[in-house]
Amino acid sequence: MNFKLVFKITGKTLLVEAIAMLLPMLVGLIYGESPRPFLLAILITAVAGGALALLKTDTKLFAREGYFTVGLIWVLFGVFGALPFYFCGYFESYIDCLFECISGFTTTGASILTAVEGLPMGILFWRSFTHWLGGMGVLVLTIALLPSLGARSAFLMQAESPGPIKSKLVPKTAQTSKILYGIYLALTLIMIVFLLLADLPLYDAVVTAFGTAGTGGFAVKNLSIAAYNSPAVEIIVTVFMLLFSVNFGMYFLLICGKWKQTLKSDELRFFVGTVFVSGIIIALNILGDYSDTETFGCALRHAFFQVASIISTSGFATTDFNLWPELSRWILILLMFVGACAGSTGGGIKCSRILLLFKALQREIRQAVHPRSVHVVKLDGQVTDEHDLQKSHAFFAAYMIILICGVLVISLDNFSFATTATAVISCLSNVGPGLDVVGPMGNFSVLSDLSKLVLSLLMIIGRLEIFPILVLFSRNAWKRS
Amino acid sequence: MNFKLVFKITGKTLLVEAIAMLLPMLVGLIYGESPRPFLLAILITAVAGGALALLKTDTKLFAREGYFTVGLIWVLFGVFGALPFYFCGYFESYIDCLFECISGFTTTGASILTAVEGLPMGILFWRSFTHWLGGMGVLVLTIALLPSLGARSAFLMQAESPGPIKSKLVPKTAQTSKILYGIYLALTLIMIVFLLLADLPLYDAVVTAFGTAGTGGFAVKNLSIAAYNSPAVEIIVTVFMLLFSVNFGMYFLLICGKWKQTLKSDELRFFVGTVFVSGIIIALNILGDYSDTETFGCALRHAFFQVASIISTSGFATTDFNLWPELSRWILILLMFVGACAGSTGGGIKCSRILLLFKALQREIRQAVHPRSVHVVKLDGQVTDEHDLQKSHAFFAAYMIILICGVLVISLDNFSFATTATAVISCLSNVGPGLDVVGPMGNFSVLSDLSKLVLSLLMIIGRLEIFPILVLFSRNAWKRS
Repeated sequence: MNFKLVFKITGKTLLVEAIAMLLPMLVGLIYGESPRPFLLAILITAVAGGALALLKTDTKLFAREGYFTVGLIWVLFGVFGALPFYFCGYFESYIDCLFECISGFTTTGASILTAVEGLPMGILFWRSFTHWLGGMGVLVLTIALLPSLGARSAFLMQAESPGPIKSKLVPKTAQTSKILYGIYLALTLIMIVFLLLADLPLYDAVVTAFGTAGTGGFAVKNLSIAAYNSPAVEIIVTVFMLLFSVNFGMYFLLICGKWKQTLKSDELRFFVGTVFVSGIIIALNILGDYSDTETFGCALRHAFFQVASIISTSGFATTDFNLWPELSRWILILLMFVGACAGSTGGGIKCSRILLLFKALQREIRQAVHPRSVHVVKLDGQVTDEHDLQKSHAFFAAYMIILICGVLVISLDNFSFATTATAVISCLSNVGPGLDVVGPMGNFSVLSDLSKLVLSLLMIIGRLEIFPILVLFSRNAWKRS
Repeated sequence: MNFKLVFKITGKTLLVEAIAMLLPMLVGLIYGESPRPFLLAILITAVAGGALALLKTDTKLFAREGYFTVGLIWVLFGVFGALPFYFCGYFESYIDCLFECISGFTTTGASILTAVEGLPMGILFWRSFTHWLGGMGVLVLTIALLPSLGARSAFLMQAESPGPIKSKLVPKTAQTSKILYGIYLALTLIMIVFLLLADLPLYDAVVTAFGTAGTGGFAVKNLSIAAYNSPAVEIIVTVFMLLFSVNFGMYFLLICGKWKQTLKSDELRFFVGTVFVSGIIIALNILGDYSDTETFGCALRHAFFQVASIISTSGFATTDFNLWPELSRWILILLMFVGACAGSTGGGIKCSRILLLFKALQREIRQAVHPRSVHVVKLDGQVTDEHDLQKSHAFFAAYMIILICGVLVISLDNFSFATTATAVISCLSNVGPGLDVVGPMGNFSVLSDLSKLVLSLLMIIGRLEIFPILVLFSRNAWKRS
């Protein structure tokens, strides 16, 4: 393992983080708030990042260094990004700040704050901005800004980007990063315009767009999106949560005029189908015995908002779905597992992996009926590589094993079965809210420090899709080359 | 699909069931009970079975007929086996009888009875006897008794026997069946002797041994094994639950004097390790804040009994583990998933499959670190066939998908999160008790008829290890050959 190189890249990325903190400081200044928390944080981050960036080393980067670098960067982004929260004095402990910041960068949106209204505008802006930065990936950003990281940066992006089958849009990694961030920025701006048209104040429109674009879910109101009490805002957020859950490669195809190829995507169809079916079932289930939803239209709007919020792993809420009947609650939990499409800003196991699991299972059934025939698994009309299937299966197994380990630790807090289970699923899938104590109108403040640290780790593991972190626990990765 | 052949084999197996009902009738007669419920049931079963067995057909049996036959037989065994319960008049509805009987044959041990004491002795004997018959497999029994089913009976046994990698002990299927039933019978008799030595009445010793041997868990006391209030009985049951969870092939190896090969088994080590670690953690967890366990020895005994009961998927109880702290409850839930060893009478995913999943995951991590090397998965020192790995992965995926479908249906009853989840897991893994409403001191009587039917189906799916039933939902299986 070439540690010098790892630290050098990490240092450069931290410098980008220090620069990113300037924006919330400016916002704070506009609202007449003291820049002190941000100045201190920027100073510390810049000094640490600068010292590491100055290290001298050659530029050979291998797969295992890539994994290690990505893991380290995400942990340190949380450690330094938590500083403005810590210095602002509104948080109870540094661990709370760390949890909140990692929840932001990993686009989870789980919060330890019991009330967000009243916090400084700059701090809330930083909180939502971390969603936007983390959504597309902090490394993708760095690669887009600093192509000098070297020709081997593909290893870094591979470790950070979601989905079972990696593909670059264009041959050059830095170019791909720029295209992705371009699409991301454009969609965010379009959303801000829509929200302004729906009469939202500029500040609220911007932070809501950050939370939606990164599929994060931090809101600046205690009641989340429900606080605006505006069907127009709810519909805009619903649509954009779904748009940000789609593989960004699709938008690139659309820009290139390849409409047909886009519509043929098995993953997209599966995603749309899942949203549609879940929304309809929940709407029927909550109609009647749920007081908020007098009309079917209202039930539909609530159902589809919550479905979009959970499957996109955003975690916004327009109603307390913790009070919904059991069937609807269980469907939402399932959607937490499923998550968004590969190559989007969303979390979870990802639709394409779920689809591969289904197809592999179908094959086994065919094989059982006709033991002597050979069967292949196809996705988008193309034969899937057996190793990609293996990786999806391994991912699924790893996801469940990590989930179990998380549940065992959190269970030490002796909260209800639903609280423990959904807190862990929600953090690992980067959703945000769970059920019961950690429901959409609850928060994570009552958990023990150990639980908060473990859940923070799970958020990073989930955001990086498990393997980059698991590799760190493998002996092979630590041998000197 | 050759339906005539399927029905003919089914008919023969039903005749075996009719004969099996003679034993509980005799027991009832000894206790001076009316033989009417059994006479009626035997008459109906024998007529139906006899009519089917008389069908004339050639004897070619293919894989898909094997799966279909096994699925049909297990459903019909429940349908006809429920008749004595129905005619005795102690059950509320035929669906309750069906649930209880399928729970018996599949060795689940989930009950809709709110109290068992007071039921006729013959009926309770039949209830426990179904565990013993179902434990080794009703088809294995038929093949052992009626070798005339044809040379292709291997397809039948394959569909019914648990575990990811099938192997016959000796070349002839009928011979293998006889050896397995021999070992099974011998272990059951030894257990009865031990229980008699521990001062249990003969009747209680026999039915407890039936429940243990089949890893079923029906008891004839409302408080399960706790009713005997005897540490000796508890320890005997603990040991035998574990013995019946081990691959029966191991006992065959022991009989052949191959000690070393037995001790080298990765699955056996994994099983013993899991039992040991879980038992210790739970003992430490329940010590102190749990009133029953004043001493560490007492905590250890309760912990290991419950661990053995759950991992063997028996479901006996010496204490209400529903009242245990969350960590212990979660560990028990995990053990419900894991289940016993392949080739035993226990249910669950099976230790060998879990082990294969772990090893496949390990391989993916190695592959991530060294992308260009080729890695294999080894079990018991031998390279595992890639298709066996695929099958284990597909099994795991299928298990989770079926679990989810089950949870969605049961959630319509609007019971607590823990009740719904553990009822489904417990039935699919053939354990018996779950938590909350369906906990060890609760029962399944309050569930709706739809839930009872779905859970009955899940018990059969779990007992047959999913694929034989999934095949029935595949279009290919229904095409005429």
